[in-house]
Amino acid sequence: MRRDYQAVRIAGLRLTSPEGDLTLSNPAITLTSEDIGPVDWVLCALKTTSMEYAYKLVRPCVAADTRILVLMNGLGIEERFADWFDANRIFGGMAFTCINRSEPGQVHHLAHGRITIGHFQNDPVELETAMALWKRSKVEVSASLSLRCARWEKLCWNIPFSGLCVAAGGIAIDGIACNAKLRNVALTLMEEVIAAGNADLASHGEMARLDRNAIVTHMFHLTDTMGAYRPSLLIDFLEQRQMEVEAMFVEPLRRAQSLGVNTPQLRLLAALLFSLGIRR
Amino acid sequence: MRRDYQAVRIAGLRLTSPEGDLTLSNPAITLTSEDIGPVDWVLCALKTTSMEYAYKLVRPCVAADTRILVLMNGLGIEERFADWFDANRIFGGMAFTCINRSEPGQVHHLAHGRITIGHFQNDPVELETAMALWKRSKVEVSASLSLRCARWEKLCWNIPFSGLCVAAGGIAIDGIACNAKLRNVALTLMEEVIAAGNADLASHGEMARLDRNAIVTHMFHLTDTMGAYRPSLLIDFLEQRQMEVEAMFVEPLRRAQSLGVNTPQLRLLAALLFSLGIRR
Repeated sequence: MRRDYQAVRIAGLRLTSPEGDLTLSNPAITLTSEDIGPVDWVLCALKTTSMEYAYKLVRPCVAADTRILVLMNGLGIEERFADWFDANRIFGGMAFTCINRSEPGQVHHLAHGRITIGHFQNDPVELETAMALWKRSKVEVSASLSLRCARWEKLCWNIPFSGLCVAAGGIAIDGIACNAKLRNVALTLMEEVIAAGNADLASHGEMARLDRNAIVTHMFHLTDTMGAYRPSLLIDFLEQRQMEVEAMFVEPLRRAQSLGVNTPQLRLLAALLFSLGIRR
Repeated sequence: MRRDYQAVRIAGLRLTSPEGDLTLSNPAITLTSEDIGPVDWVLCALKTTSMEYAYKLVRPCVAADTRILVLMNGLGIEERFADWFDANRIFGGMAFTCINRSEPGQVHHLAHGRITIGHFQNDPVELETAMALWKRSKVEVSASLSLRCARWEKLCWNIPFSGLCVAAGGIAIDGIACNAKLRNVALTLMEEVIAAGNADLASHGEMARLDRNAIVTHMFHLTDTMGAYRPSLLIDFLEQRQMEVEAMFVEPLRRAQSLGVNTPQLRLLAALLFSLGIRR
């Protein structure tokens, strides 16, 4: 723990949730990962803006048989971990959940909670191992036989909805959902992401594809049941912190362009967010 | 004069310009257009956000032979005046100039100054009459045989550059010109406007066309010599006034869509500006 260490030491880790609140009064926490040492599983849920710290933070916990689940947004994330550690022991996870952190030691779970997990090399046996980890938890976890597909699926939400929340001046999700013009561009942005994702999957010889109609229906349903949720990109923007523009917008755009997929709205949005970000 | 009346009465109308400053110490000004009465020429340079006041302001000055030059931004402007007055005496003008107003009675001319004039019905004889009006002035005036073409030409600058200045968080023109990502989307936005404009011209049986290469070169040259200019849309945004989103973005988008021209970046930009505008 970094920012929250003292608060959790004193008052425990407090979680509010529509499914019931929870306090862990004396959780096992440390200030450094050296104090933890080698473990069976590392779950890395850093922001991609802290990617430069990831190696240093994770390394002390990794032994030869340690598996690493990377619960981060954007593209090109597991690739970095596979450079540093055993590629066969890297997993990626996508959290489709509305969570905000507030005061130190306090986490607010607001809605939804599914996690999708994939293996970096799409190894089904390794994927089973990862799934077993969650079996006794109450978290809804689904396995994806294509991590790449799952990554793009998450971007189908994040790019239009997180992106527009910031670019439209700093508004919550219901400001997109209830505005016909923004809702329409959210849809066409999503279609661009689907096209880019499917080209990326095909170029890597993967069988998996993003199903346009299923994804559009699902993502708008999620969105319409989020209320005035503020995505983490928006909170970072409003609180003048660095935004995850590189991994969440620029890298997907780069892939689309290298594959010759025309994504004009993503290109405009990425340029605006990049510019909004560097002004901080 | 409205806001500036008292200041100009007392101190005159002051103009600063790289071509030399100027003070009109006792200009002929009135508080109402009723105090002016019928004239040969009306030059109407309102913001389109004040369109609802235009008829009331202009009407007292219009006799049977009065000509009206509409120096306003956006599309669908002369059409309104042609509804109210004699369509054969309506002209449109586009000012390619960098002007900001500051304290009451003070106008800052910063760069450039060309005005393009067209006749609402593209009548070359009427157009000559309008041109004669400017002959003795030092203003660089060019005649356009297609008002529609001239309107779209102005939008080729306003949509990308004014639009991005606001959508990128409120930055001046050099923030677009010196940022490779924004410069690139300014170009593709301009190409969308050119495509929409040419479709609009063709659908109205006009011979004139927007020349893509000439316009791109010209508009980027203008932009690169503007420095840190703040377009009026940006100033309205920063000062929390209503922006000219309807005439400058939404109406051009509407025309593109009705003509089946795909303008995804204009659509995203218009939605963002519309949303930024209604939040004020």
